[in-house]
Amino acid sequence: MPSKLLTLALGLALGFWAAPAQADELAAIKLAQPDMSAAGLTVIQALSARKSDRTFADRELSLRHLSEALWAAGGINRPDGHRTAPTANNRQAIEIFAITKAGTYHYDPLSHELRPLTPGDHRAAAGSQGYVATAPLNIIYAADLGKYKGDNAEKKAVAGMDLGHFSENVYLYCASAGLNVVTRISIDPKVLGPLLKLDADLVPLMGQTVGYPQ
Amino acid sequence: MPSKLLTLALGLALGFWAAPAQADELAAIKLAQPDMSAAGLTVIQALSARKSDRTFADRELSLRHLSEALWAAGGINRPDGHRTAPTANNRQAIEIFAITKAGTYHYDPLSHELRPLTPGDHRAAAGSQGYVATAPLNIIYAADLGKYKGDNAEKKAVAGMDLGHFSENVYLYCASAGLNVVTRISIDPKVLGPLLKLDADLVPLMGQTVGYPQ
Repeated sequence: MPSKLLTLALGLALGFWAAPAQADELAAIKLAQPDMSAAGLTVIQALSARKSDRTFADRELSLRHLSEALWAAGGINRPDGHRTAPTANNRQAIEIFAITKAGTYHYDPLSHELRPLTPGDHRAAAGSQGYVATAPLNIIYAADLGKYKGDNAEKKAVAGMDLGHFSENVYLYCASAGLNVVTRISIDPKVLGPLLKLDADLVPLMGQTVGYPQ
Repeated sequence: MPSKLLTLALGLALGFWAAPAQADELAAIKLAQPDMSAAGLTVIQALSARKSDRTFADRELSLRHLSEALWAAGGINRPDGHRTAPTANNRQAIEIFAITKAGTYHYDPLSHELRPLTPGDHRAAAGSQGYVATAPLNIIYAADLGKYKGDNAEKKAVAGMDLGHFSENVYLYCASAGLNVVTRISIDPKVLGPLLKLDADLVPLMGQTVGYPQ
């Protein structure tokens, strides 16, 4: 048996091939830097226009809108690694995930890119509402509750505060960019855990759906 | 005894006069409407400039800055009464209070004014950090936990999310307006309860200090 075939047979027997094939299917997405000189609403105007809207066109986000929405959520905005949204005591215990038509991703703020997790259209798993299945972007926010202090209620109260800051950035960005957005608490950790390859301590607590108006 | 004197004597005996005297000392503040045409940062620029800064000049906020900071936090931005920040399931269970050098106030989003509560400089009671005593504005956010569903941890998680949205609006407004701001979780409900005349169900969970850079 030629060594190539042997390797293939061994690989198939050991289940090696599933992982490389998946990685091939879903590439990392290098996100665009936010455009500081682009036209947009002032903060006061965006606060005036801010709203929740649950209607979304079934159309992919442009790379610019995808990139800026994730940077708004929790991107790095200073050379020392600080971010667009604060976390209590600078705990940095929030992780951001993206679910698109192509697959699920982890947002890496340092490299400002989406790292592939699970290929395929898993948008319907992003929440109980029908619109999550067709909207182009569902952001899932997970908190590492082990990094917070106090009892379970105290941990969740402060994690909730952290999450609200992230979410509101995206609200105001969407108001400025003409995107629709709604934040949701109806997400299922049991469904999302495997899709987002979450560690046991990382609890998905909040979702946010983003897209173009219909 | 003339009837006027009789009324006065009765009033003093019954303790009537304390309340009107206090109300005289601390008037309601009719806030200015946000200026949609004012120059300011775009949302992307404000996200880039957003930061926590714990240094504050000992100088009162202008009426415009006071008004816009409170409107950003949770003012009404639509004719149907919806607000600049979302609340989960539109529960509207967050109340906003202001502590200034003059006294403590409740923010009424409908009339966009500050209603007087307790006169006097109680800023030092706004938190454990030294800067709260000299910064011109401490916003205190309280949640009516009775309006949330689930166990204590679930209520606090969702209340925390609501609060984070309010707070981040103020962060981005301050970034745009050149104000310093920091959000704090170190607040004492036992101290704040009487000063803000809080009902038992209304729990102060978050503070936010706003002022001019030094």
